[in-house]
This record gives sequence, C-alpha cells and structure tokens, in this order.
Amino acid sequence: MSRDEITAAIVEARLTKGLTWQQLADAIDKPVVWTVSALLGQHPVPVESGKVIAELLGLDESVVPVLAAVPMRGGLPTAVPTDPTIYRFYEALQVYGGALKELIHEQFGDGIMSAINFSIDVQRKPHPSGDRVVVTFDGKFLPYDWTAAEK
Amino acid sequence: MSRDEITAAIVEARLTKGLTWQQLADAIDKPVVWTVSALLGQHPVPVESGKVIAELLGLDESVVPVLAAVPMRGGLPTAVPTDPTIYRFYEALQVYGGALKELIHEQFGDGIMSAINFSIDVQRKPHPSGDRVVVTFDGKFLPYDWTAAEK
Amino acid sequence: MSRDEITAAIVEARLTKGLTWQQLADAIDKPVVWTVSALLGQHPVPVESGKVIAELLGLDESVVPVLAAVPMRGGLPTAVPTDPTIYRFYEALQVYGGALKELIHEQFGDGIMSAINFSIDVQRKPHPSGDRVVVTFDGKFLPYDWTAAEK
Amino acid sequence: MSRDEITAAIVEARLTKGLTWQQLADAIDKPVVWTVSALLGQHPVPVESGKVIAELLGLDESVVPVLAAVPMRGGLPTAVPTDPTIYRFYEALQVYGGALKELIHEQFGDGIMSAINFSIDVQRKPHPSGDRVVVTFDGKFLPYDWTAAEK
Amino acid sequence: MSRDEITAAIVEARLTKGLTWQQLADAIDKPVVWTVSALLGQHPVPVESGKVIAELLGLDESVVPVLAAVPMRGGLPTAVPTDPTIYRFYEALQVYGGALKELIHEQFGDGIMSAINFSIDVQRKPHPSGDRVVVTFDGKFLPYDWTAAEK
Amino acid sequence: MSRDEITAAIVEARLTKGLTWQQLADAIDKPVVWTVSALLGQHPVPVESGKVIAELLGLDESVVPVLAAVPMRGGLPTAVPTDPTIYRFYEALQVYGGALKELIHEQFGDGIMSAINFSIDVQRKPHPSGDRVVVTFDGKFLPYDWTAAEK
Amino acid sequence: MSRDEITAAIVEARLTKGLTWQQLADAIDKPVVWTVSALLGQHPVPVESGKVIAELLGLDESVVPVLAAVPMRGGLPTAVPTDPTIYRFYEALQVYGGALKELIHEQFGDGIMSAINFSIDVQRKPHPSGDRVVVTFDGKFLPYDWTAAEK
Amino acid sequence: MSRDEITAAIVEARLTKGLTWQQLADAIDKPVVWTVSALLGQHPVPVESGKVIAELLGLDESVVPVLAAVPMRGGLPTAVPTDPTIYRFYEALQVYGGALKELIHEQFGDGIMSAINFSIDVQRKPHPSGDRVVVTFDGKFLPYDWTAAEK
Amino acid sequence: MSRDEITAAIVEARLTKGLTWQQLADAIDKPVVWTVSALLGQHPVPVESGKVIAELLGLDESVVPVLAAVPMRGGLPTAVPTDPTIYRFYEALQVYGGALKELIHEQFGDGIMSAINFSIDVQRKPHPSGDRVVVTFDGKFLPYDWTAAEK
Amino acid sequence: MSRDEITAAIVEARLTKGLTWQQLADAIDKPVVWTVSALLGQHPVPVESGKVIAELLGLDESVVPVLAAVPMRGGLPTAVPTDPTIYRFYEALQVYGGALKELIHEQFGDGIMSAINFSIDVQRKPHPSGDRVVVTFDGKFLPYDWTAAEK
Repeated sequence: MSRDEITAAIVEARLTKGLTWQQLADAIDKPVVWTVSALLGQHPVPVESGKVIAELLGLDESVVPVLAAVPMRGGLPTAVPTDPTIYRFYEALQVYGGALKELIHEQFGDGIMSAINFSIDVQRKPHPSGDRVVVTFDGKFLPYDWTAAEK
Repeated sequence: MSRDEITAAIVEARLTKGLTWQQLADAIDKPVVWTVSALLGQHPVPVESGKVIAELLGLDESVVPVLAAVPMRGGLPTAVPTDPTIYRFYEALQVYGGALKELIHEQFGDGIMSAINFSIDVQRKPHPSGDRVVVTFDGKFLPYDWTAAEK
Repeated sequence: MSRDEITAAIVEARLTKGLTWQQLADAIDKPVVWTVSALLGQHPVPVESGKVIAELLGLDESVVPVLAAVPMRGGLPTAVPTDPTIYRFYEALQVYGGALKELIHEQFGDGIMSAINFSIDVQRKPHPSGDRVVVTFDGKFLPYDWTAAEK
Repeated sequence: MSRDEITAAIVEARLTKGLTWQQLADAIDKPVVWTVSALLGQHPVPVESGKVIAELLGLDESVVPVLAAVPMRGGLPTAVPTDPTIYRFYEALQVYGGALKELIHEQFGDGIMSAINFSIDVQRKPHPSGDRVVVTFDGKFLPYDWTAAEK
Repeated sequence: MSRDEITAAIVEARLTKGLTWQQLADAIDKPVVWTVSALLGQHPVPVESGKVIAELLGLDESVVPVLAAVPMRGGLPTAVPTDPTIYRFYEALQVYGGALKELIHEQFGDGIMSAINFSIDVQRKPHPSGDRVVVTFDGKFLPYDWTAAEK
Repeated sequence: MSRDEITAAIVEARLTKGLTWQQLADAIDKPVVWTVSALLGQHPVPVESGKVIAELLGLDESVVPVLAAVPMRGGLPTAVPTDPTIYRFYEALQVYGGALKELIHEQFGDGIMSAINFSIDVQRKPHPSGDRVVVTFDGKFLPYDWTAAEK
Repeated sequence: MSRDEITAAIVEARLTKGLTWQQLADAIDKPVVWTVSALLGQHPVPVESGKVIAELLGLDESVVPVLAAVPMRGGLPTAVPTDPTIYRFYEALQVYGGALKELIHEQFGDGIMSAINFSIDVQRKPHPSGDRVVVTFDGKFLPYDWTAAEK
Repeated sequence: MSRDEITAAIVEARLTKGLTWQQLADAIDKPVVWTVSALLGQHPVPVESGKVIAELLGLDESVVPVLAAVPMRGGLPTAVPTDPTIYRFYEALQVYGGALKELIHEQFGDGIMSAINFSIDVQRKPHPSGDRVVVTFDGKFLPYDWTAAEK
Repeated sequence: MSRDEITAAIVEARLTKGLTWQQLADAIDKPVVWTVSALLGQHPVPVESGKVIAELLGLDESVVPVLAAVPMRGGLPTAVPTDPTIYRFYEALQVYGGALKELIHEQFGDGIMSAINFSIDVQRKPHPSGDRVVVTFDGKFLPYDWTAAEK
Repeated sequence: MSRDEITAAIVEARLTKGLTWQQLADAIDKPVVWTVSALLGQHPVPVESGKVIAELLGLDESVVPVLAAVPMRGGLPTAVPTDPTIYRFYEALQVYGGALKELIHEQFGDGIMSAINFSIDVQRKPHPSGDRVVVTFDGKFLPYDWTAAEK
C-alpha cells in the first residue's frame, strides 16, 4: 500500500473501531496534534509507534516501514481550502497575514516564524460569551542570515 | 483617494515619518495587530481614530470617511502567498490543517473557530534554543446549528 | 468504504430504489435541504439516522460510523461551478455579492451572515408569470468582535 | 470616464458626502439591493436616475450616458471571493449547492432558478439568540425546454 | 454504475456496435443534438428512451433510472477546451463575445439569450468555396426583470 | 494611443455621442457584428473606415493607422466569462460542446468549423412564447488534411 | 477499453515488443509524426491501419472501432507543459509567438496558419557545431474572410 | 522609460510612421524574426542597432541602454494564448507535442531541441490549394549529459 | 505496468526491503541524485541498470523496457510545490531568481544555465552553527545564438 | 514612491548610468547576489547602504527609509516563470526536486534546507566542453523539531 492508501485505511479504521485521535496519541505517547497530522500523512511515524498504530487499527504490518518514511507533505486538496473549519484559518491569513508580517519584523527584525522548529496546539478555553478555540502557532524565530558553509 | 490608495499612502508615510506600528496603535489606543491590519486596509477605522492617524501621518482629512467604511477584505496578492514570512502560516495549514479540523471536531463537536468573533496575537517568547514567535488564533467556537429566523 | 464512496453509493441506490429526497428526509425526520446536503457528503449523519438510511438504501451497516464523522466539506467539483442550476447562484454572487456586502454593513454594521448558524430553504412560490424558486439564506449576524479567551 | 472609473468615483463620493445606500435608492425610487448593485457597476442606470445620482454625488453630467449603458457584469475581483462577508455565500454554495440542485429538480423538474427574472432581498430578522441576516434569492423557474424560433 | 461510468459505456458500445448518433436519435425520436448531449451525460434521458438506448447498446437495465435523473452538467474536461473542434467555438466567443453582448442589448435591451429555453442545431450548408458548418444557437430572450414572488 | 486605449475611447465616445452600433456599421458599410467586434479591438479597421469612425466619434486622426493594424485578439477579461449575457454562450459549450463535436464528425468527417473563414449573425426572431435571440455561427468545414508545401 | 486505456496499452506494448515508432508508421504506410500522434490518441486511426497496429502490438481486435473514432484531442497533461523536450516549443512561443504573429500578418495579411490543413515534420540536420533538430510547422494560410452560407 | 513602455512606444511609432518590420530589420541588418521578437521586448538590442531604431522611430536616445539590457522574457499575456494566430501553434503542441517528443528521442536519443541555440523562420510557400505558412523551429540537439564543472 | 505504476512500486518496495537510495545507486554505479531522480520517473534507466534494480526490489522483469524508455518528465504534483523540503527551493527562486538572471547575464552575457547538460549535487557540510545542506546546480552556459541548420 | 516604484527606478537608472551590479555591490560592500536581490525588492537595504545607492543612481533621498523596510517578497511575475534563464531552475525542480527531498532525508533525516539561514552564489567555472554556470544553494539544515515556548 502507498502512503495515501494507508492514510485512507487509517481514517476508515479509526471510525469503524470507534477510537478517538486522543486515544491513538496516548497509545504512542505523542502530542495529539502531531499524531493526527502524522496519521493523516504529514509526518513520518517512528517504527515503534507505527507498530502500535497498525495493531490498534488492524492494519497489516507491512504498512510500518511506509509510515516510517518521510512523506510528501501538503494535505489540502485545493490551494484555497473549501472546508469551512479549515477555511477560517486561511481567511485569517487573508485578513491578518500582512499584519503578522509587519509585527514579526517590528518585534524581531527581518525573518520568519519557523514552520519546522515548530509546534501547534489546540485548546478549549472558557469565555462568558461562549467557549473559544485557541490555536497557538509556536515557531522559532529565524532571522534572515546570509551564511555559507565553510569551504 | 480610494481605500487602496490610502493604504499605499499610509505605508509610505509611516516609513518616512519613522513611526512604528506600535506607536500608531498606542496613539489610537487599539490592539496592535488589529491596528496594523486595519491600516493595511482590512478593517474600518473609526472616525476619531482615523483623524488621529491622518494627522500623525500627514494625510488629508478627506481620507477619514473612506477609512471609516468597511473595506473589501482580503490582503494577499496571490492565493498562495509568496512572501516567506506569510507563507510559513500557509505551510502550517498544509501540514496541520487537517489535524486542526479533526481535533476541533473531537474536542468541540461539529463546527468551526470563528474568524469574526476572533482576535489574534503575536508574542516574543524566550526559549533556550532561541526566541520564539508565538501567534495565537483565538476564535469563538461556532457549532453547526440549523436555525431559522422567526416567521 | 470512504465517505466519497458512500456518497456515490447513496446517489445510485436512491435512483435505483426510486426514493425521493423528501422521503429520505421524512424517514429521518430532518429538514430536507439539510438531509440532501448531508447525504451528498457535506454533514455528519447521526448514528440513528445513518442506520435508517443504510437500511432504506440497502447499504452495509459499516457505513454508519463513517457517515457519522464530520466530513471534509466542499461539494463543488470546480471552483466556478459548471452546472447551470448551481451556476445561477454563483452568477447572482457576481452581480449582487458586492451589494449584499454593502447592505449587510449598512443595516447591521461590520460583520457577516454566519454560514454555520445557518439554514437554507427552497420554496416553490406562485406568480402570475410563472412559479418561482425562492431560496432563503438565513444566517445569524456575526459582528466583527475583537475578543480573546480569558488568560 | 469609463464605467469602472465612475464606479470608483461613486464609492468615494458617497462616503465623503455621508449618504447611505438607502438614501440613494430612495432618491431614485428603486429597490435598495438593485440600486447598490447598479451603482457598483452591475446594472444600467436609467437616464433620469443617473441624473439624480450624478447631482447628489457631485459627478459630472457626462457620466449619465455611460451609467445608462449595459455594463460588463461580474463584480468579484477573484473567482473565489476573499472578503469574508461575500465568502460566506460562496461557502454556502460549496456546502448546499448540490442539495439546492437536487431539490429544485425534485420540486420543479429539470431546470433552473433564473438569475435574470430575479430579485434578491436582504432583511434583518429578530431571533432570541441574535438577529439574523435573511437573504432571499427569488427567481422564476425555467424548465429545460428545447424550443426553436419559427422558420 | 454512476452516470459517468454509463456515459463511458455508451461511448464505447456505440462504436463497437457501429451505430451512428443519428440512428440513436431516430430510435428515441428526439432531435439529434439533444440526443448526443444527453447520452454524453448532459441531460436526463426519459425512462422509455433510456430503455431503448440500453437495449440497443447492450447495457444493463439498471442504467435506466440513473440515465433518467438530472445529471451534474458541464462536459468540458478543462475550462478552456483543448480539442480543436470544440475550441473554435470558444475562440469565436473570445473574438465575438463582446460584440454579441452589445448587439443583444442594442436589439433587445438589457437581458440575455436563455441557454435553458434553448435549442441548438448543426447543419451542413453548401457554398461555392466549400461546404459550411452552420450552428444555430437559438434561445428565448430574457430581459432583466426585477420580480419577486407574491408574499 | 495604444489599441486598448483607442477601444476604451471608442466605447465612451459612442455613448456620449448617442450613436448606435448599427449607425456606426452603416457609416462604414460593414456587417454590424463584424463592426462591433472590430471596434472592440478584435479586427483591423481598414484606413478608410477608420477615418470615418474617428470623425464620427471625434477621435484624433492618429488612431487610424493603429486601428488598421491587426490587433492582439481575445476579448474576454477572464478565461471563463462572468458577464451573464456572454456566459450563456460558454454554458452552451459546456452542455452541447461535446455533441457539436460528435455531430460535426458524423456529418462531415474529421475536421472543424473554421473560426476564420467565418461569419456570425444575431437575429431577433418571433415566437409565440417570446422573441428569440438566434445566433448563427457559420464557418467553412475544414477537414484534417496532412498536406505539406512543395519542396 | 476507452481510447485512453488503448493509448496506455499501445505505449506499453510498443516498449515490451521493442518496436520503433518508425516501424509502426511503415507498417501502416503513414507519415511517422502523424502515426505517433494518432497512436498517442490525437487522430482517428483508419480501420485497416488499426487492425495492423492491433495485431503488431497484440491488442484485442475490439480496439479497432474505438481507434477509428475521432478522439477528444489535447495531449498535454497540464496547460503549460512540464516535460523539458516539449517545454522548449512552448518557450519558443513565449519568446517568438508575438513575432510570428506580426510576420504572418506582414507577409500574408490578416489571418492564420491552419493547424488542420497542416503537417509537421522532424528532421535531423547536420551542423559543424552539432546536429540540429529541425521541426517544420507547415499550414495553409487562412485569411480572415467574413463569409456566410447561402440562404 | 521601462522596457515595457519602450515596447509599447515602438509598436505605436512603427504604425504611425508606416514602417514594416522588414524595413526595421533591414535597417539594423538582422534576421527579421529576431528583429521583431527583440523589438517586442524578447531580446536585448545591441547599442548600435538601438540607436538606429530610436532614430527611425523618433524615440528618445535614453531608450538605447534599456533596449540593450537583457529583458525579462515571456511575451504571452496569458499562459494559454487567446489570439488565434498564436493559438494555432499552441494547438499544434497539444496535438503533436507528444509525438515530437517521442520522435526526437527515437531519432536523437534522450535530450531536447535547444530553444537558445536556435533560430526560427517564417516562409510563404506556394501550393496548388493555397499558399502555406511554413515555420521552421531549428535548434541544436542537446543530449541529457550529467556533467559537472571541474573542482 | 505503466511508468507511473512502476515508480509507485519502486517507492514501496525500497521501503519494504529497507534499502537506501545510496545502495541502489551503488548497485548500478551511478551518481546518487541521478539515480533517485531516474527511479522517481524522471530519467530513462539503461537496460542493464534496470535489470539490477528490478532484481533488487523484486519487480517483474517486464518493467525493464518501460524503465529504459524516456519518460514524460515533471515530478511536482502541483505547479507550486506544497512539500516544505521542496518548497524552499521554489521560495529561493521567488527571492533570488531575478538576481540569478541578472548575474548570469552580467558574468556570461545573454544566455542560460543549461538544465540538460547539467548535474546537481547534495552535500552535507559542517558549520559551527549547524550542518548545512549545500546543493549545487551545475549547468553549461548556453549563449543565445541565432544559428540555423545548413540548407 | 512605493517600493515597487523604487525598484523600477533602480532598474532604469542602473542601465542609464552604465553601472554593473558588481559595482553597486562593491559600493555597499555586500555579496553581489544579495545586493541584486535586495535592489530588485527582495531584501531590506540598510540605511547607510541605501544612501550610497540613492546617490550613485541619482534617486531622491526619500527612498532610503522605504528601501530600509522589509519588503513583501516574491519576485516572479507568474507562479511558473516564463523567462528561460529563470525557468531552467524551475525545470530542475520539476526533474530533481523529488530526488533532492529524498536525499536530504536520507543524509540528514526529516527536515529541510533553510531558505532563510541561507546564501546563494553564482560562479563561472571552466570546463573543456564550455564554461559552466555553477549556482550553490547553501542553507542550514533544519530538522523537524516539535518544540514549544516556555509557559
């Protein structure tokens, strides 16, 4: 099975088995956002974790080395996402992306928030007018730095 | 001047006058991310604030009512952003968007994080291996709810 | 079966069995537009309803948990729809979208019509020059509101 | 001035003069959605109405015949709208477009809702959990009809 | 079988059986352009006609109700057609589309040629310098008409 | 002035002068569809005709040689037209394009309708249920013919 | 098998059988560029030739009538080709397309090089600094000619 | 003036002065296709030639160094050309591009026709059924060759 | 199996067998970047090498002639790559592409870096602040050269 | 002047003044690729350097603070570059991008080559069969690292 076929099998098996993503994350002792992203085909799954997942979901063990390889990343089926839950994040970039850029530069100088040395978290936080989805993008600041390897 | 022309004038005048975005936000007593986004053409600027901004940046007072109108939002010049500082947020959606969707549904049920009842914040946070850009997307959870007006 | 395969199976089975959408909606006691949209893969179908649908259409019971999961939404095969019946709604947005925006702002202030706290209805209404398709988009007004979770 | 330049001039002059769209509609005695759409460049403006508008907004009378011509319609700057207020209608088509099609066919037979013999209305309607934006798309049903001119 | 699979089966079976489109149209007593379009998946095929087609082409009778449903229309595989025979019509729109619009407005007023109350015909007509393909688009004129259902 | 600027000037001057396209066509004694298309920038305008047009519309004589040059053709601002009057022709291609191709091949063999040795006509034709827009695409049949220049 | 499946089968069988395109062209006594293009799905293959090809490549005889039908043309998988060998021709159009247009008009008048009454040839030609690929596009000049069928 | 503005000025001045492209090519003693392509902004124009062109067309001498710089190449306003005269070359690639690739590989091995060590020519050639446009793409064969600089 | 299917089989078999790309390159005695690119479907694999690869990965020998054919090149699934590891190279082109062009012209004159007479290398190089990925694009300079085959 | 206008002014002034990019880089004592990229609008130019550049090129001093601001990066006018000199780098990504990804992962593990902690160099290197353009992309390896700020 290709990685894409394994991802589809995971999605179906999880629902059929009635397991939550949190249960899968707990089973392999990894952060839950990382776990979901990895099982949706966006990160390699270490061999030990892959074995646990395969067993829990009833997948053939041959999926383990394929899960362990670095996948071709990029999980949105269209450049502009159509799913409303995902779209709202894209919309936030349309409205606040320019401001984020300006303020990263004003507070840190020229550079970026790394999306590699990075973690992301989803929290449910209370508020009098209704609970809130609080998503934290947390990446190392990388300054533009014109460096070359030693020759 | 159209709103686009006013935005361009603000961008230039701010640099020429040597003002920071934080100074502009302080002058109108608004959150800084909101302020930058508004001055980049993504939010209406209340008349009193618009007058302060116009005076600080040396713009004609005729810009005030145009700034006060709700603008046509959407600040990315291309559907997939090319600027690296902005792109990293888009990349995070490619890698983690599916996981965010799954976990919002697992933790809250079917619905979305509002991008309207929403705030966003940029913080510089220390870390032994280098300071971090921490961006918080904070939106009210809106459950899918099949409701109609009273007839 | 993946959700997409289930959707295709529903589409075919409904025609073969000669059932109307209204009959399916009645069987699960849900509004008909909601029902069709859900069965076309745009909403989760509660387990009890899913069982009824599976039985009526002769689908395997294993589809029930997949139907009950929140799907990846977005049902148009191309960004600009090609089907004339759907296209007319897109055309209306091209011609009246700017006006809707202006009037929502004029009547309510800065904000949007929610597409989540939302219902939609199709009615056949008489008119001397021919019956009319009357489609009502009915969403809660959400004002732009810069709110953050409590810390 | 081209029609596009006139539209831009109208947008600015209305804000500067502090006139509401409703006032402009009342001045020419036309429905308000139609009026806004026309003044945003989507419909011809009859000569008498054009004169009233030009006078109210302080535009040169030479705009009147250009306003009276049928414009090149299509007011969205991108195929998928980026402005959140407009996007929600597009999103509703992604989620409910297929269902609208199925139900128009089930209730009326094969055909479409006309977007030409058509009106659209925006209403503010009360609801205990918050006022609602109710937008009615109202078009004549046109059945597919294979007809030819007489020879 | 889905409608797409049925269309593919029709295309192959017609060639293998050596039947012309005209023969199929005659068998169901429908105009030939309508027939080809319907069998290529663009129109519903009435049950009686569908039975005739299925028998002639050796298809299973289960295709009949699927053929009888209104299909998702739009038969071009890309937005700009690549096939030269189809492209020439698109090219004609690039060169003459603006002129058609202007003249429909000059001769009829503001409105459109309906593509629903519509027929299309292909004729071979003689000419001294070579026979000509004469394609007639014939649609009812629909004036822009701001009408609403009765309340 | 570039050809694009001249086109814009023609569009405005015609409205301001209150001239119909038919009057312009009559003034240069050319078919009206051809005339409109040419004046919208899709055909070269012969010098004598260009002089007449320039005089009638009050344009500088320097436009004449630019009008006489073969223009860069292609008059739709987007690949898929947004204007409803033009879109209906595109829609007809989506629905009937495949059928036109099949029938041209069935009636003529492998080849195309020329869009170069071509004329197009718009007629208003009566019908009991409402007048019809009848547009005739009339192009020479060109068979695929593998021919080479003499060597 | 659909035409696309037959094309794929031809591509594989030719390699497995170790036949050159020239050998296939010789077997059916057709020009080699035409032959390759036809076998890649861009031209109908006459029945007699189709039988020869099917036999040589070990394909079922049922492919013959499908090969003989006029295919849906357009062989590039993306609008801008990615394969370097094909891309260089596209690049030549980017650099020289405008010049070709100007010179066709200067030498012939307003019109085009037909791509239907057309042949194309690939030759290997010697040159002191390395052999050259010489590709000749040879099409009949078609002048823009406003002609209509006789009525 | 930028190179784009200079190109526009050349296009207009040539028409106003009534000069042919051939006359311009003769004046600078260069091949005519090269000359047109260069003057349309696709090649640098050597200083001596640039002076001649500027004088002939009445342009300011300040254009000479800008003309002499290597331009940003790519002259098609859209990825798929809309102008019929240019489109036919694109269409030929859609129909014959795959065949050209196969035959270049069969006759030369793995590699490409260079579009850099390249010339292109347009000829008018007689034929009993009408004169032909013969365009020759002539590029050095470049074999794929895995070579590295010396270290 | 088509080349695409063979590529998928190679990707899976390599992971299942636990072989590195370097081991595969060593087995066929080719540069490792070339080897990976070829096995991902971007270069023909010589017959002898193909046999070695097929044996090592347990593929049927029938893949050998398909691997030996020149493939349709172009390995990115979208025009703008979504995978972060690949995207960074695209980003570098966005930021430095214009500068590379200017400096190639300043140092070499008008021309290009060949991507055909070309090699590419990936090295790990040490640096005090962290090891570096050093990728060398090494292509023959090809000057624009207007040359034609001998006649 | 906006940054885009300043870039255009720099491009023209450099040519008119007859300065090389190397001379500009030497004047501000920066690496030449960095300098060209910055002056083409892709990097902020420090104030001291900006003054030197403005003086050398005869630009108004008001450009200095605009040059010193971090620009909106992304210098390609289209997603797929059309200029042949730049396109070859894109082509190399199409052919070798997948291989670069695989080998970075094989040699370094899961992660990327930074395009921020990065330098790029163009060298002319001799080779018996012709000088070579050697471009080195040199970026710090960044391993995927799930790290969060301290709380």
